[in-house]
Amino acid sequence: MDNLEKSNVSEENKVPETLDVVNPYDQAYIESIPTVMWDDIDKYLSTAHQLYKDCNQWIPAFERVSILKKTAVLISERADELAFLIANEGGKPLVDARVEVTRAIDGVELCAKEIAKLTGTQIPMDLTQAGAGRIAFTTKEPIGVVVAVSAFNHPLNLIVHQVAPAIAAGCPVLVKPARDTPLSCKAFVDILHEAGLPPQWCRFVACDIPTSEKMITDPRVAFFSFIGSAKIGWMLRSKLAPGTRCALEHGGVAPVIIEKSADIEAMIPSLLKGGFYHSGQVCVSVQRIYAPKNKAKAIAQLLADGAAKLVVGNAIDEKTECGPLIRPKEVDRVEEWVDEALAAGAILVTGGKRLGESTYAPTVLLEPPVDAKVSTMEIFGPVVCVYGYDDINDAIDQANSLDYAFQASVFTKNLDVATKAIRELDATAVMVNDHTAFRVDWMPFAGRKQSGYNTGGIAYTMHDMSQDKMAVIKL
Amino acid sequence: MDNLEKSNVSEENKVPETLDVVNPYDQAYIESIPTVMWDDIDKYLSTAHQLYKDCNQWIPAFERVSILKKTAVLISERADELAFLIANEGGKPLVDARVEVTRAIDGVELCAKEIAKLTGTQIPMDLTQAGAGRIAFTTKEPIGVVVAVSAFNHPLNLIVHQVAPAIAAGCPVLVKPARDTPLSCKAFVDILHEAGLPPQWCRFVACDIPTSEKMITDPRVAFFSFIGSAKIGWMLRSKLAPGTRCALEHGGVAPVIIEKSADIEAMIPSLLKGGFYHSGQVCVSVQRIYAPKNKAKAIAQLLADGAAKLVVGNAIDEKTECGPLIRPKEVDRVEEWVDEALAAGAILVTGGKRLGESTYAPTVLLEPPVDAKVSTMEIFGPVVCVYGYDDINDAIDQANSLDYAFQASVFTKNLDVATKAIRELDATAVMVNDHTAFRVDWMPFAGRKQSGYNTGGIAYTMHDMSQDKMAVIKL
Amino acid sequence: MDNLEKSNVSEENKVPETLDVVNPYDQAYIESIPTVMWDDIDKYLSTAHQLYKDCNQWIPAFERVSILKKTAVLISERADELAFLIANEGGKPLVDARVEVTRAIDGVELCAKEIAKLTGTQIPMDLTQAGAGRIAFTTKEPIGVVVAVSAFNHPLNLIVHQVAPAIAAGCPVLVKPARDTPLSCKAFVDILHEAGLPPQWCRFVACDIPTSEKMITDPRVAFFSFIGSAKIGWMLRSKLAPGTRCALEHGGVAPVIIEKSADIEAMIPSLLKGGFYHSGQVCVSVQRIYAPKNKAKAIAQLLADGAAKLVVGNAIDEKTECGPLIRPKEVDRVEEWVDEALAAGAILVTGGKRLGESTYAPTVLLEPPVDAKVSTMEIFGPVVCVYGYDDINDAIDQANSLDYAFQASVFTKNLDVATKAIRELDATAVMVNDHTAFRVDWMPFAGRKQSGYNTGGIAYTMHDMSQDKMAVIKL
Amino acid sequence: MDNLEKSNVSEENKVPETLDVVNPYDQAYIESIPTVMWDDIDKYLSTAHQLYKDCNQWIPAFERVSILKKTAVLISERADELAFLIANEGGKPLVDARVEVTRAIDGVELCAKEIAKLTGTQIPMDLTQAGAGRIAFTTKEPIGVVVAVSAFNHPLNLIVHQVAPAIAAGCPVLVKPARDTPLSCKAFVDILHEAGLPPQWCRFVACDIPTSEKMITDPRVAFFSFIGSAKIGWMLRSKLAPGTRCALEHGGVAPVIIEKSADIEAMIPSLLKGGFYHSGQVCVSVQRIYAPKNKAKAIAQLLADGAAKLVVGNAIDEKTECGPLIRPKEVDRVEEWVDEALAAGAILVTGGKRLGESTYAPTVLLEPPVDAKVSTMEIFGPVVCVYGYDDINDAIDQANSLDYAFQASVFTKNLDVATKAIRELDATAVMVNDHTAFRVDWMPFAGRKQSGYNTGGIAYTMHDMSQDKMAVIKL
Repeated sequence: MDNLEKSNVSEENKVPETLDVVNPYDQAYIESIPTVMWDDIDKYLSTAHQLYKDCNQWIPAFERVSILKKTAVLISERADELAFLIANEGGKPLVDARVEVTRAIDGVELCAKEIAKLTGTQIPMDLTQAGAGRIAFTTKEPIGVVVAVSAFNHPLNLIVHQVAPAIAAGCPVLVKPARDTPLSCKAFVDILHEAGLPPQWCRFVACDIPTSEKMITDPRVAFFSFIGSAKIGWMLRSKLAPGTRCALEHGGVAPVIIEKSADIEAMIPSLLKGGFYHSGQVCVSVQRIYAPKNKAKAIAQLLADGAAKLVVGNAIDEKTECGPLIRPKEVDRVEEWVDEALAAGAILVTGGKRLGESTYAPTVLLEPPVDAKVSTMEIFGPVVCVYGYDDINDAIDQANSLDYAFQASVFTKNLDVATKAIRELDATAVMVNDHTAFRVDWMPFAGRKQSGYNTGGIAYTMHDMSQDKMAVIKL
Repeated sequence: MDNLEKSNVSEENKVPETLDVVNPYDQAYIESIPTVMWDDIDKYLSTAHQLYKDCNQWIPAFERVSILKKTAVLISERADELAFLIANEGGKPLVDARVEVTRAIDGVELCAKEIAKLTGTQIPMDLTQAGAGRIAFTTKEPIGVVVAVSAFNHPLNLIVHQVAPAIAAGCPVLVKPARDTPLSCKAFVDILHEAGLPPQWCRFVACDIPTSEKMITDPRVAFFSFIGSAKIGWMLRSKLAPGTRCALEHGGVAPVIIEKSADIEAMIPSLLKGGFYHSGQVCVSVQRIYAPKNKAKAIAQLLADGAAKLVVGNAIDEKTECGPLIRPKEVDRVEEWVDEALAAGAILVTGGKRLGESTYAPTVLLEPPVDAKVSTMEIFGPVVCVYGYDDINDAIDQANSLDYAFQASVFTKNLDVATKAIRELDATAVMVNDHTAFRVDWMPFAGRKQSGYNTGGIAYTMHDMSQDKMAVIKL
Repeated sequence: MDNLEKSNVSEENKVPETLDVVNPYDQAYIESIPTVMWDDIDKYLSTAHQLYKDCNQWIPAFERVSILKKTAVLISERADELAFLIANEGGKPLVDARVEVTRAIDGVELCAKEIAKLTGTQIPMDLTQAGAGRIAFTTKEPIGVVVAVSAFNHPLNLIVHQVAPAIAAGCPVLVKPARDTPLSCKAFVDILHEAGLPPQWCRFVACDIPTSEKMITDPRVAFFSFIGSAKIGWMLRSKLAPGTRCALEHGGVAPVIIEKSADIEAMIPSLLKGGFYHSGQVCVSVQRIYAPKNKAKAIAQLLADGAAKLVVGNAIDEKTECGPLIRPKEVDRVEEWVDEALAAGAILVTGGKRLGESTYAPTVLLEPPVDAKVSTMEIFGPVVCVYGYDDINDAIDQANSLDYAFQASVFTKNLDVATKAIRELDATAVMVNDHTAFRVDWMPFAGRKQSGYNTGGIAYTMHDMSQDKMAVIKL
Repeated sequence: MDNLEKSNVSEENKVPETLDVVNPYDQAYIESIPTVMWDDIDKYLSTAHQLYKDCNQWIPAFERVSILKKTAVLISERADELAFLIANEGGKPLVDARVEVTRAIDGVELCAKEIAKLTGTQIPMDLTQAGAGRIAFTTKEPIGVVVAVSAFNHPLNLIVHQVAPAIAAGCPVLVKPARDTPLSCKAFVDILHEAGLPPQWCRFVACDIPTSEKMITDPRVAFFSFIGSAKIGWMLRSKLAPGTRCALEHGGVAPVIIEKSADIEAMIPSLLKGGFYHSGQVCVSVQRIYAPKNKAKAIAQLLADGAAKLVVGNAIDEKTECGPLIRPKEVDRVEEWVDEALAAGAILVTGGKRLGESTYAPTVLLEPPVDAKVSTMEIFGPVVCVYGYDDINDAIDQANSLDYAFQASVFTKNLDVATKAIRELDATAVMVNDHTAFRVDWMPFAGRKQSGYNTGGIAYTMHDMSQDKMAVIKL
């Protein structure tokens, strides 16, 4: 998801002690924040580990509920400034940044609610004679120290999804923000503390990559939560200390299948939203659209017409609909991938060019080769590809052909096609008559195969950060 | 759990093409079986992967139910020969081997039952306006190709716990048995096929360690199920292909806390069973017993009295209560650890000596040093340690002090002590007035911290081997 | 459902002490069985109540499992004779009677399985400060003495659905069969006893109606399970003793909506099955079919063509597809209702006449008045009505217009119509492209509004027959 | 629970058209409110029924959530005036009335939360061949029009427990308050409307008893929720229209068993709270205490010492600990019952006399006869009975001997006694080392046997007010 980090791990293992945060559109300086050095992280981990080991120091549920409710109120009160921060440091258009803040509030409230659902079960023991004469039940306990490493594309809400569940589940947590968007994260951690969370239960740790890796792989870490690129995620899993659990949320190359009965008029706004929201910098962004061969061109054109009208600009301008990519280097990359596709025979329907140092025009490609980068790797930029198909089975096969699988969608009016797509698409979620980026925060949200590990969504994350303890009492 | 493999990974990376299976008591030759070479495994993986990718080839639930029910019947019919096999190749006394077969039957039936519980949930979407106007529900799908690698100590039942859930969940599976006990595994796989499972859905792959590692880390593997030593397990996790999930079941150094109100008479048979069953070769074997200082010696003596009466011998003899360790080298290791403890001040209450090439006397040690190997590492042999304590809080701290945590127990008549132990012991299961090795097959069974990853128990494993797919239909 | 009892309660409150069971086709004598007098029932209730009150006398789960598994085996072994009995005393064609036996076996096995799911839950108590410092969990207990009163149309399987869950849940049970089909019930109770159930845990009580009512309304009864007519069911509820719970399963007037996109060819066999299975003597029998106005006649004709080919005869003849109605008086009633509809303008497409004393020709009516008995009351005979509609909303309104609501169905290829029907049809189950009588035994099966109370289906019934007990331990 | 209504049904079937609300301590006039006549109720029912029948008019979940959250905020803002109202019209001491308001707020918030849990389940259909080839899932729908009839003893919180779940579940609701405490109810309904609930979705209907009965038994009512006396409740059930479901919450005669190991000092404050809170006008009030024979007198004396210190007075005085009974006639009744017990040999340890027209002294009786009214019927007044026992089994038998069963408790330090009591006490909840009146609003709260029907507790009530709809789509 976080392509910048994806491409740069090796070269930038030395971040300066101060992190300069800039507006990604014009690189305007926003603020500098100090990075945290290993010695401090070591202390944080040590304190967190000690807190966790003594269950009598755990924060009771009613206090966790109270802290999270207070947190939601504080975010509400600062909604405007947080939305501006998201737009300013993250390049997400203000209108969308405001929605992100609303979702963050909902997410924190959801965490407070779900605490009541961290329940165990009673287990009947007399199902065999060997087990008879016992009472048994399970309870949920926090899993231990959580380290969360986040991505830039939802600078506030991803943090909420990674940190608030840890607090809700009763785990001490250290959170490393994306390098480009630390300010929203810091604001959230500050709010948690202001809401009554003792500071040692949640630490903000902007740090360089080697330090980050040292933290992630420390044996005191019980759970590692990562949102970012698949390559980094799986690499980090391989380095985790024995005993450390993890959840990884990576990206996909989301496929959409349009069946012949679909209502084309109705779907275009949905696909535009799904493809160009946040300039495509979303892990479930619409990237590959399969349409009946005789309709593919027309559909591509309708999308292109819509895409061409999108206002590209600085995210902090009210009228901006598509902001910059997170770094100029990302624009280079997208440019290169599109050019590669065009050179290999793709038809450019709209866009296809850089608009400035930090922006790329919303782009629609028709029939790029199936082995082009734009067809096989996550673009994470404002580029949508349209492919024609003869037989819907081929389209499904194509949709399923990559090592990545996240959300997918089908547009159809036909019941049989809908149920076929639901059954046959290899995806964690199949949207019928909606774009692939649809999400509500209480639904499971996960990547399959290499697209992720374990399940996101507030309640699901809280369960991942909890563990069962069984009590068996012999009568 | 599988200490042999634990200590020998590096040196024995070349298993001969034929595996000679022997009785571990007297090394009497039983049978030779061919190992499977990589080329065949590669084909198995390829076929399994293809089967899985086409959901129209999946085995419908009613057929899976039918195959598993038939399997249970076939095992019942061959219960005697399977029990003998377990005793003969695995060194588990016949009486216990018969119980293992019964549990295996129950386990397979449980798999058949639990298929009905692989259900998804409907998800209300109108909890926010953004989600309104949609119907959504999840279903369970098989996760993909499973590779199971097993341990020697329950040669049939562990295989049942790893393979039958895969079949039940609808996953193709390749299973590698422990090197010492492949025959029970092979018998089970043959029975599955005889019960109607197409051979390509379950492959028996006795192979050498490098080949095994190649198989485990192959990207076509969706799920890796491992029962064995923690060291090997976590090492293998670090080598898994991106996208491969896993479950690990390792061992512990199970603690028992005896509180002053406990009924000592009543607990001795339970502790003897928990400590010396299968000569302690169980991952939740009673190893560390904490007793009030003024009772520790007496308790150790009562245990010693019982231990001294246990009949040690060849597992296939009806009268044997403790069989051999799985390999002579294991006896060497146990001998060395006990000698180390004695040299460091432990008091020998009974046992403490080798009885033959393959057997070690049931042993009770009093007050071995807390940093001795017998106090900190899994013995996987017939050795129980007793420690005195002044304050029960110290006992709990000691019990919780290792990087391993699995099942624990407390003996008490006092309600407050029972609930305190349930809350404070760091364990996946706290037994009250029962030994740590208590288990029924429908309960969750898992190691915490470095003792394991994910949860065992039939239903839990089936859920690990399944994944959710959500359908969201826009109205 | 049981129309005979429906119409005859008042007049036949004196059943002779011996019940003569006959074949409903030709009234051939089968067997006489004695009815049970109140004194015996009083003793049964008293014993059952005493058994229940002492929880130390309850049958442990593993024994209940074992008894039920044995029961399933015994039914399997006697499948042929039971199927013949069902056909002979109940008039259900042999081929269908055999399916009923298979379902009975599955049902008993399902009961055995579901025992493992009678679990409680742990409840977190520290969600407020007032609740903190406590451990709490619930368990399931049997609810007490069950009295089951059954219907004739599935003489074995309904008994299984009412009695086996009681045994599974741990409740003593008294069962009164339908007057016309006591032999299958008696056979089942005998099998339960043979399988090891102590006789006092399940009593067969064929009795007259006043005695039955005395039993049902006795204060020692904790749960009353009734399958039969709505009129009787709700009347009995009103007479239950304070504290007695109940489940009622009555009939409906099942509606089917055919939308214009539906595949007519494909649906005819399904509708014939749904409408004429067991001569329509099923509580979810297809009764009202709403079709687009321009297709209604053609659809009615296709149904008529199929209906006319059905072989009507004695259920014990292999070739019979439609057997007799349960009593000649029922044929009178159906005759009268159809005649009334015809007189009021309905078009007769096929059938419409009595074939003998006990049989009525499979009948299709077109456009009977909406207020005719055939349009508003449960026919429980081989009569299907077809109505044309202009607007699907009207069809849905008609479908929803009665005080009865059970299963409904829609035939369509259109996704929007399918989801609309799912949302708007007032039914416990909406079948898409299937007839209303579809059922599997693990799904919830229930009447809404006046069609029933509580939910049928093995697991659901077991839960109704269980109650929660919570334990709250203050730390 | 509502003893007044209990005793007066027959005589006061004509309530004047205006209801005069008074302070029960001194009968000081508070306010008059008009009663609602049948014609209006008929219109309310008709509108509610129409609203319900058209699912397109249902209030979407996000609006229900929003209305309930707003409701909670409004209650918070008016907490003081509501607490005063509760004390003034209901006679509950201010300090307790404030707690009731807090619980009401929590209850409304809980309803808002639990909406997210009104989920159905996906049901696998291919468990048999007959079901294969289908997708099925259930959803939750509101059950229809709810009529709630409430009791006086928690004038706000009971209304919350009956009305807010109906709104949350999506049901239109008519609520009849207790005759003595309509003002809190009216305030709550007004707040709901102010929070955005359209008035036709919730109607306040203070009415006389015949009108109330007409409303309750109307066939348009889908669900009847009743809190009050068992006698009235079960009588009303017998009169419900066919198809109407119900939940009844009555009282008990709550037993406490003190075992010899119990910490007597520690339990006295708990028992005083459980016995004299709201002058015992609570359905789970501590009424029968069984103590070891040699400790019974001492325990009774300790309770008496505490009881004698309780400040009895007008509930609106800050210092009052025990308020009046709801009506002078109730004091007459309590007086009579205690006198009867004393005449039959009970020993008076404290209290035993009327303090004024509306108050009765907190009373402790030792060894009243087991068949006295105070031992067998719900006192609903400030009277606690202590009985000595020789054998704990006898105490349990006594505790279980009535037709009523609700919450029970045991005081012990002994683990075996605790588990024995949990198993053997016939109660919906067994409190260990806590009084019987302990409750948190998310736990199940229910009467067994004649003490109630269905389960209270927010989430449970919401489920009772919902019904499942299954969709089965044939592929």
